[in-house]
Amino acid sequence: MLSVIPISKAYRLLNHGPTVLVTTAHGNQRNVMAAAWNMPLDFDPPRIAIVIDKKTYTRELIEASGSFAINVPCRAQAEIVVKVGSSSGRELLGKPESDKFAAFQLPTFAASNIAAPLLEGCVAWLECKVIPEPHIQDTYDLFLAEVVAAQVDDRVFSQNKDGQYLWHFEGHDELRTIHHVAGGAFMAIGEAFTQANP
Amino acid sequence: MLSVIPISKAYRLLNHGPTVLVTTAHGNQRNVMAAAWNMPLDFDPPRIAIVIDKKTYTRELIEASGSFAINVPCRAQAEIVVKVGSSSGRELLGKPESDKFAAFQLPTFAASNIAAPLLEGCVAWLECKVIPEPHIQDTYDLFLAEVVAAQVDDRVFSQNKDGQYLWHFEGHDELRTIHHVAGGAFMAIGEAFTQANP
Repeated sequence: MLSVIPISKAYRLLNHGPTVLVTTAHGNQRNVMAAAWNMPLDFDPPRIAIVIDKKTYTRELIEASGSFAINVPCRAQAEIVVKVGSSSGRELLGKPESDKFAAFQLPTFAASNIAAPLLEGCVAWLECKVIPEPHIQDTYDLFLAEVVAAQVDDRVFSQNKDGQYLWHFEGHDELRTIHHVAGGAFMAIGEAFTQANP
Repeated sequence: MLSVIPISKAYRLLNHGPTVLVTTAHGNQRNVMAAAWNMPLDFDPPRIAIVIDKKTYTRELIEASGSFAINVPCRAQAEIVVKVGSSSGRELLGKPESDKFAAFQLPTFAASNIAAPLLEGCVAWLECKVIPEPHIQDTYDLFLAEVVAAQVDDRVFSQNKDGQYLWHFEGHDELRTIHHVAGGAFMAIGEAFTQANP
């Protein structure tokens, strides 16, 4: 089931470095792209950093709307990640499948704080509002954003018996986060372990 | 064995989101800290982004030297990662163990282009020179850097039969990269897979 988590724990959804899907909407336009280059930037208020290339349609929609969602996809969605990462939503404008959601039959649900749709089947969602920093956006394609809401699939992310919010993928290999290396070569996240400070 | 890789492939060492160790040196001072918040920023010239908190001794040495190394640690080094991530090099100044390398008995070797020592036993090393961006350094603790040299442990990162530079951890579980979630809870990187665009 979907669960809302405390916003101060949102960084834990990205801390381990998953490849993500960025969804956007502005007016009746919407898009989804893949992005491996993302990271947390602060705990509370939670902020993230992400690279959004100038050539992308997503960039246009982010600059118009000032917001986007980070959807954390899972092993079962690897084909979707490669499909949306290998095509441009701009090329679909005016076609019968007017966007990638239609073209690839990707069901979505509404975000709570932003216009961007959230992609069903992912394991975590972070709703983000851009912190305007024009110089680094222009020079490095680097966007900073505040996370204003965070949800998870609580089959794989929830509080443990000690009250800690953590990932727990055991028994759910198809829901493991995926981590792109290059050219369609990925690794799924693997074994969990705890390392105490001796 | 250690191998130098083409600088244009350096992003592949961080693309899957490992937690890293940052080493620094200035004059006869040196330090090492853990950093989960890092990502590639560009392919060629390769650039990276990393968060370095104002309170850290590493920050002081990076600002003084203008350079640092990213060392990618492995499963066998998890205890080292937690130790260096839970202590400050500043507290060791003037003590018999003058830095964390001495205190934790961490062997190092020389970098090729910068003063920072490289930590033995890691699986990849990126030598980085800071791209000065004072506003985001001051406001967000966010540093951008150009990667000027990259080395790997070629037991787990090398060219495959198709000439692609990729990670290959099969048979080397102790060398898998580690991905911190929070409070000493980690995940090792797991199963590799290729997803073609159908």
